[in-house]
Amino acid sequence: MPKKLKVIKVGGNVINDKEILHQFLDLFAKIEEPKILVHGGGSIASELAETFQIPPKMVQGRRVTDGAMLDIVVMSYAGLINKNIVASLQKRSCNAMGLSGADANYFKTVKRPVEEIDYGFVGDCVDDSVNVEFLKLLLENGITPTSCAITHDTQGNLFNTNADTIAASIAKAMSKDYEVELIYCFELPGLLRDIELPDSKIDTLNLEKIEALKKDGTIHSGMHPKIDNCKDAILNGVSKVFICHWKDVVQPKNGTSILGFKEMA
Amino acid sequence: MPKKLKVIKVGGNVINDKEILHQFLDLFAKIEEPKILVHGGGSIASELAETFQIPPKMVQGRRVTDGAMLDIVVMSYAGLINKNIVASLQKRSCNAMGLSGADANYFKTVKRPVEEIDYGFVGDCVDDSVNVEFLKLLLENGITPTSCAITHDTQGNLFNTNADTIAASIAKAMSKDYEVELIYCFELPGLLRDIELPDSKIDTLNLEKIEALKKDGTIHSGMHPKIDNCKDAILNGVSKVFICHWKDVVQPKNGTSILGFKEMA
Repeated sequence: MPKKLKVIKVGGNVINDKEILHQFLDLFAKIEEPKILVHGGGSIASELAETFQIPPKMVQGRRVTDGAMLDIVVMSYAGLINKNIVASLQKRSCNAMGLSGADANYFKTVKRPVEEIDYGFVGDCVDDSVNVEFLKLLLENGITPTSCAITHDTQGNLFNTNADTIAASIAKAMSKDYEVELIYCFELPGLLRDIELPDSKIDTLNLEKIEALKKDGTIHSGMHPKIDNCKDAILNGVSKVFICHWKDVVQPKNGTSILGFKEMA
Repeated sequence: MPKKLKVIKVGGNVINDKEILHQFLDLFAKIEEPKILVHGGGSIASELAETFQIPPKMVQGRRVTDGAMLDIVVMSYAGLINKNIVASLQKRSCNAMGLSGADANYFKTVKRPVEEIDYGFVGDCVDDSVNVEFLKLLLENGITPTSCAITHDTQGNLFNTNADTIAASIAKAMSKDYEVELIYCFELPGLLRDIELPDSKIDTLNLEKIEALKKDGTIHSGMHPKIDNCKDAILNGVSKVFICHWKDVVQPKNGTSILGFKEMA
């Protein structure tokens, strides 16, 4: 029977409100099973960019990470946000260890290939992105990996990377050795049919249903990447995937459960 | 026969010049023995403070770290500088792991006691500051701890801490299990009798000589903290202490050697 592991991603809006972040960390710290936290960046990078008068660089309507913006996200994600989360977890007797992908070469990516758009310093996950042995070393020593969404390419470059995808990649890679639950936490009660109506939450999804909801537009463009990460995780060994309110991090079944093949049968 | 360990601190001026920093990291990465890097912050925090229009807060002529300045140093030391150094070492096949004191509770301090001056978010080292078991875990797994000078108090607070003192505290704590060399690297060839004359380098110092040079003013006020850290290390189990040019990090004997009791006899 493999050991259990929870990979929990907490989104930007929870990061933006210190009070809410601390309430979330209270709950997270109390989870007794081995766990990994991946956190988004919130709005602080945009605020800093404004202070530095670095205009958001857009190409064909897509946000691009140039060198100046990379410095800003590294400072804020890997520095200010990550270290404050780690210190807050230590206060809560959770032995957190802050990580960027460069640290102990734990998460490597490749620069997003330039096709129509050069996204700049943006890293895409690859098959062997995750240093499983290193994460196991930490977990087996009672340490909680706590990662921001900065990665590296082993050639000295740091990259801005999607935090949802990092969480899914970790969950997939760790599922060879653990029974993994992947939990996406944010400020909504789960996946909603109508974002204005909290009680329109979809309780369960399976792969067929996902496709149907994409077709009928219930899963709209903004949700596609997150749902695709859920699908990818379920298709690649992760036992359970949830999208839930941060208050439900301990009971993610209160949110939306994405069912694997077993449950679909 | 205990294993050897080098604790190497590199100073701010080496951090400020990317070209020089990379030359230093070339040399550092080639050191084959187990090693720990502690880096200063350079001038970037002051430059950022200027951009944010945060005036340096001085009380009775001493620099104070208020909340706004703490955010700046956490961003720049633990974020921008630390992660770029780690990524650069990974490129050089040195398996570096970036650390602040909060990470895995590796270095805890206490807020500097308020006497005449409240220094704000400044942490002082205590007897059990260093998590020796955690550093050993990394070293035994071929990982090179790479620490900035941000620490924590286990109560959720981050502190700005003197990087020289962090290096000395690590060297002392690790000397129970390792034969430790403590090496302070900077842009001068060693301790100079006259800072204008590179060939006025003092080749060796012992504890008696240190006191004599303090008395006659050769060791002037700015050098006192560094020299006191050297003394403290030698008096508390560290085998060898050097102050040298960063180019001599592999051959620190080219700089100033601070001799322990054995060599003094």
